[in-house]
Amino acid sequence: MGKDNVKLLSMWASPFCMRVKIALAEKDIVYEEILEEDLMNGKSELLLKSNPVHKQVPVLLHDDKPIVDSTNIITYIDEVWPEKPLFSACEYEKSRARFWADYIDRKVYPAGRAIWSSKETAEVEAAKKEFLDIMFYLDGTLGDKDFFNGDTFGFVDILLIGLTSWFPAYEKFGGFKLEDHYPKLAAWITRSWARESVSESLTSPEKITNFVAMMRKMYGIE
Amino acid sequence: MGKDNVKLLSMWASPFCMRVKIALAEKDIVYEEILEEDLMNGKSELLLKSNPVHKQVPVLLHDDKPIVDSTNIITYIDEVWPEKPLFSACEYEKSRARFWADYIDRKVYPAGRAIWSSKETAEVEAAKKEFLDIMFYLDGTLGDKDFFNGDTFGFVDILLIGLTSWFPAYEKFGGFKLEDHYPKLAAWITRSWARESVSESLTSPEKITNFVAMMRKMYGIE
Repeated sequence: MGKDNVKLLSMWASPFCMRVKIALAEKDIVYEEILEEDLMNGKSELLLKSNPVHKQVPVLLHDDKPIVDSTNIITYIDEVWPEKPLFSACEYEKSRARFWADYIDRKVYPAGRAIWSSKETAEVEAAKKEFLDIMFYLDGTLGDKDFFNGDTFGFVDILLIGLTSWFPAYEKFGGFKLEDHYPKLAAWITRSWARESVSESLTSPEKITNFVAMMRKMYGIE
Repeated sequence: MGKDNVKLLSMWASPFCMRVKIALAEKDIVYEEILEEDLMNGKSELLLKSNPVHKQVPVLLHDDKPIVDSTNIITYIDEVWPEKPLFSACEYEKSRARFWADYIDRKVYPAGRAIWSSKETAEVEAAKKEFLDIMFYLDGTLGDKDFFNGDTFGFVDILLIGLTSWFPAYEKFGGFKLEDHYPKLAAWITRSWARESVSESLTSPEKITNFVAMMRKMYGIE
């Protein structure tokens, strides 16, 4: 689909940008990625103009109109490019997908951040417990299905898998292995990473773990 | 529309339940409201079974299937009962509506709560400033339109107006008047409350303000 003018304002370490890249790849949408070089020392004029309220990546520019917030962007992509739908056609199943999307959006990244950014052992343990409690619910809703969407890779799969290149850093600095607790969820990660749309969109876990280690030094944690 | 089996698990003081009642009224959907009598001392079996993750009202039961989270419920209602649509048909406008919906969901109620639940004057002032900063953005996006949706009362209007029976309590305990800062937004509230779907769904501000005053006593604030 080369007919459209699609650009993505992105940053290599952002799991929310990675999500959008997966959705664009799943839909075979050709786009230009514009990388924010250095979010810590200043944001581009284009970013500030495109997302004046939150001033955050990702921003999708479609025919120069900005769409912001990763979950919102992915919903938009599915509406504008309806082939290979990301949602079930059943309204009830759609409502379940939106429910888990919201759950993931509010819980997973903050819990993971608390693991690697906490100094005290008790804080790290509490954050790890919170993270694993969240995974308990996600493992339960995945159940024995191949994907959260059922047989096909869909909306909830994209939203969660986009966050997983940070998971090895959570495991390393939290001292746990997800697969020891939730082998089905760990197998879903492996299965999803085998998709080209995923593996080519996600920054490598090694690079993310090095980035997190650098931030821990910067924050005086180690 | 009497063909459907629709029930709402609700609680009289919850602004999130009020939102859903407005959406049901806008769509002329006949439903049974099942009130949770006393959320502080125990939740009903039906609520715990219907919303095991968050254990919160509102829950919509449609043919006995539970849909949870007010914003999600209202989206579901619009999809299942498409007459009198709550969204623009334009995907870009829809994405803007979802953006503001998310903004309202994350910001307005917590900021309002911080106003009435803070003890120290400096904390109340900071919360009031935060609340008015949020209103600045909402006033800006409303602009000179009659409704957030344009000429018709839509998704963002429902999500925000559902929260407004708590506003007089924020004003009273924060010592401000919204209309002194944002007269257009205040006029939008008056205009929206003139709709039967709104006035009949919202608990009276007096009742909410008394409820808030009672909680402030309970928490030892006054």
